[in-house]
Amino acid sequence: MLDEILAPVRRENKQYIVFVVDYYFKGKDLVSRISVKPEDLLLFEDVDQHEPTTEQIDRLRDKILAEKGLPSGVVGIGGGSIMDIAKAVSLMLTNEGSSTLYQGLNLIKKPGIYHLGVPTISGTGAECSSTAVLTGPVKKLGLKCEWTVFNQVILDPDLIASVPDDWWFNTGMDTYIHCIESENGTLNNAFSHAYAEQALSLCRDVYLNENSGRSAENDDKLMVASLMGGLSLSYSEVGVCHALSYGLSKILDYRHCYANCVAFQHLEDIYTRGVREFKQMVTKHKINLPQNLAAGWSDETINRMAEVAYNLPHMWHQAFGENWKDKVSIDYIKGLYKRL
Amino acid sequence: MLDEILAPVRRENKQYIVFVVDYYFKGKDLVSRISVKPEDLLLFEDVDQHEPTTEQIDRLRDKILAEKGLPSGVVGIGGGSIMDIAKAVSLMLTNEGSSTLYQGLNLIKKPGIYHLGVPTISGTGAECSSTAVLTGPVKKLGLKCEWTVFNQVILDPDLIASVPDDWWFNTGMDTYIHCIESENGTLNNAFSHAYAEQALSLCRDVYLNENSGRSAENDDKLMVASLMGGLSLSYSEVGVCHALSYGLSKILDYRHCYANCVAFQHLEDIYTRGVREFKQMVTKHKINLPQNLAAGWSDETINRMAEVAYNLPHMWHQAFGENWKDKVSIDYIKGLYKRL
Repeated sequence: MLDEILAPVRRENKQYIVFVVDYYFKGKDLVSRISVKPEDLLLFEDVDQHEPTTEQIDRLRDKILAEKGLPSGVVGIGGGSIMDIAKAVSLMLTNEGSSTLYQGLNLIKKPGIYHLGVPTISGTGAECSSTAVLTGPVKKLGLKCEWTVFNQVILDPDLIASVPDDWWFNTGMDTYIHCIESENGTLNNAFSHAYAEQALSLCRDVYLNENSGRSAENDDKLMVASLMGGLSLSYSEVGVCHALSYGLSKILDYRHCYANCVAFQHLEDIYTRGVREFKQMVTKHKINLPQNLAAGWSDETINRMAEVAYNLPHMWHQAFGENWKDKVSIDYIKGLYKRL
Repeated sequence: MLDEILAPVRRENKQYIVFVVDYYFKGKDLVSRISVKPEDLLLFEDVDQHEPTTEQIDRLRDKILAEKGLPSGVVGIGGGSIMDIAKAVSLMLTNEGSSTLYQGLNLIKKPGIYHLGVPTISGTGAECSSTAVLTGPVKKLGLKCEWTVFNQVILDPDLIASVPDDWWFNTGMDTYIHCIESENGTLNNAFSHAYAEQALSLCRDVYLNENSGRSAENDDKLMVASLMGGLSLSYSEVGVCHALSYGLSKILDYRHCYANCVAFQHLEDIYTRGVREFKQMVTKHKINLPQNLAAGWSDETINRMAEVAYNLPHMWHQAFGENWKDKVSIDYIKGLYKRL
């Protein structure tokens, strides 16, 4: 349906589309199915080395504008990183200066251009969330505003059928953890609760119940779970696990979903039932999560991660309420990291 | 939040907002809470007499354009009828000619202007659906396209707290029936199923389970159920009950949600479990649904209703699949009406 959807979009601006595609697909069958026109720009981005950075977004934006001027739209085809790149590029094509200026809530000044997401991995919720998470020189924080949200999303479960097993597990667990953090947070409400409850039920079907495991039916379910988990957290907030995970990603370059899994297993005192069920899923799918990582980290490394995590007040607020500082200090967070 | 949300919108077009408010609220407290500016147009529409008509939309559009030119946005505050009026007016302000020209799927030529919905009754799903149902001289059919969907929606459960009991029941049952028709239809899919399953669970909380009945918590749940039921049907389709209901509305002026309830109780052979549960809810809330109506209808009346219902092929297709004509004829539909 991509062609049909893009036809009216192509009339805008300089009348061409930028396709941002995961480098993983270069030369693969999927690419031949995208109808790229001669005037379009097809960019393969390598997201294996690191998660999206502010420098990368600025570079892409400058390159696109220098080569062909303002495009009609940006189409992202890939996992959560590509989704975030497409969202961020769309915004930065119309907002001047470096993307580091806009990391935070509602700092973006103008709507971006039309952008469409085609997820090829499900779980991060990046296809529906109102943030585009970027790692900058100072912080890992999203460009978060109403204009970040994709104009349209194509959900095609065939595209996630070939995701490697460990990514299938880790990214799916991102959704699971979104829901647990949403359900156990102080900002939970009827809307975020209804979405989390249904997404959790879908996650159990995909990873735990009788017909769990990889199947076409479960790919359908995982794709919807990712969307609903993303909508749940969009209307509440993530919590402790994501704060720790951001520190792991910023300082040690851990991938987001993997970092979540590494941290979540040690949070049974905070998310009791969630962590127990998570461990059942880990066992069922024979996932090896590393243990005793902290033994190999210097105090300096742990300090730096704790600083990153502490500077995410919205997540601690969600987890422990307005008076979160009564409980959470740098030392408390260092203690959490030392469990890993 | 209305003021804050509308501030950036007010810069567009002739820089004023049209508020379309249910006449029921004229002089009531709610109106004083809307910050209407001197340049704005505040229109109270009486939706008690009949459901929205094409003539009504054309008249409103002409009046607005003649008085003040193209507005920045349209805000609808009311139940499903007001939601549909706001959506339809937004579209007809930019599409020329009578709205009768656009009744159907994707017939609208241009995006409408910004429109925001504030539901004061929950259940129809009109706050999130991609259709604005209008009764025209020939058909009852929606202006259905992607631009019909509201740009933004404010869900405030306080606003539905004072809905009269019978409306609270009938409109909630509209959501319930949306989900049953979505779940039992041939177009059901992982997306519409997940939404219907959760909306049904919420409906059971509100109308059937231990803590059912009218409470602030249940108003929260009903508001989310309405949204999710609307999203479920938007990505699949309604079925037999809605086809019959449209006939009742078009020929006998029955209100949509009431017409649904009147028809649904007699469809146990088609929606077995759904109708049984519906009857439990009817009993629990001591709702008196009329019986033996058909005895008072002329054959001519039944014929005309059956014609209206038969001309909704998408609903019969959803209910019985591609070969629905093997089962469904005017006589079959007349038989269904004679059950009422």
